[in-house]
Amino acid sequence: MELVYIVILLALIVYNALGFLVGRARKTHGVKAPAITGPEEFERTFRVHQNTLESLIMFVPAVWIFGMVIDPLWAAVIGLVYIVGRVLYAMGYIRAAEKRGPGMMVSFLANAVLLLGGLVGLIVDMM
Amino acid sequence: MELVYIVILLALIVYNALGFLVGRARKTHGVKAPAITGPEEFERTFRVHQNTLESLIMFVPAVWIFGMVIDPLWAAVIGLVYIVGRVLYAMGYIRAAEKRGPGMMVSFLANAVLLLGGLVGLIVDMM
Amino acid sequence: MELVYIVILLALIVYNALGFLVGRARKTHGVKAPAITGPEEFERTFRVHQNTLESLIMFVPAVWIFGMVIDPLWAAVIGLVYIVGRVLYAMGYIRAAEKRGPGMMVSFLANAVLLLGGLVGLIVDMM
Repeated sequence: MELVYIVILLALIVYNALGFLVGRARKTHGVKAPAITGPEEFERTFRVHQNTLESLIMFVPAVWIFGMVIDPLWAAVIGLVYIVGRVLYAMGYIRAAEKRGPGMMVSFLANAVLLLGGLVGLIVDMM
Repeated sequence: MELVYIVILLALIVYNALGFLVGRARKTHGVKAPAITGPEEFERTFRVHQNTLESLIMFVPAVWIFGMVIDPLWAAVIGLVYIVGRVLYAMGYIRAAEKRGPGMMVSFLANAVLLLGGLVGLIVDMM
Repeated sequence: MELVYIVILLALIVYNALGFLVGRARKTHGVKAPAITGPEEFERTFRVHQNTLESLIMFVPAVWIFGMVIDPLWAAVIGLVYIVGRVLYAMGYIRAAEKRGPGMMVSFLANAVLLLGGLVGLIVDMM
């Protein structure tokens, strides 16, 4: 499971970097805490961070369980695809709302494989 | 622990479906990303998803630890009650803000049993 | 790992208490769900809860993995520092936005040690 844990920690470090981008965007656009609305460019950066949080709550348990139940190497590989998808999503969405699609789709599909793969594996194991 | 993992993955799949409802509500009410405010019906759907995220950050570790420390079957049963509570909450809140109470209470109580039960069990174990 | 699990559950219970503060602030300031904007005092309380969620998504897996890979006692100690940081952050931020810095820094550093310590430990293990 070492590889799976490494991938989880890498995903969290990328997520933390997205949090720094929100802090920087607060300064650039003069959006003082606790406000979370402002120029669209700030709001896009804010949503990149939030949406990644909304996605990580699924990814972390899903990749962990998939690694235990199915295969840790495959879990790590799909987890890396997830991270690449999230980076593409962030790079696209920070530029324009319309550019968030492809990265979102990649990370969504990776998450779906982990969630459904783990679920099917567990149900097969129990039967 | 297989049953506990199944319940965790089911809760995450329900949560993912709530995310789809937000996407659909964006289209229905013409609320374009990155905006998160708009007609109240959109905002209620948005909050259903967000509040479930706020709740899952407690549920996933709590049901996992309860399953390891106390009993995996009981963890799975209480976890199912939690999921039912979350579905009731979503169905109520999407209709009207006043209807979010009962489901919220059911999932809150399930979470409280998992959190406090796990904590008591761990403290007893260590003594 | 019992101590690590206890620290995780304590962090989640503190987080749950911050959620109650948001509910109370809704009543005090007349901010009805699903609204998440209102008087600055309400918004600060709301952000305390949200930011702690944004932080817990990293803390829970990081302290768990650090405990398994490096040392459970050290994980628990650093986890307690994290919780103290979060409580200071909440107490400061609820009073004034400028007072959120010290607690945020303490919990951020604790999280960084857990994330990077775990990552280095795993990479060393694999070599």
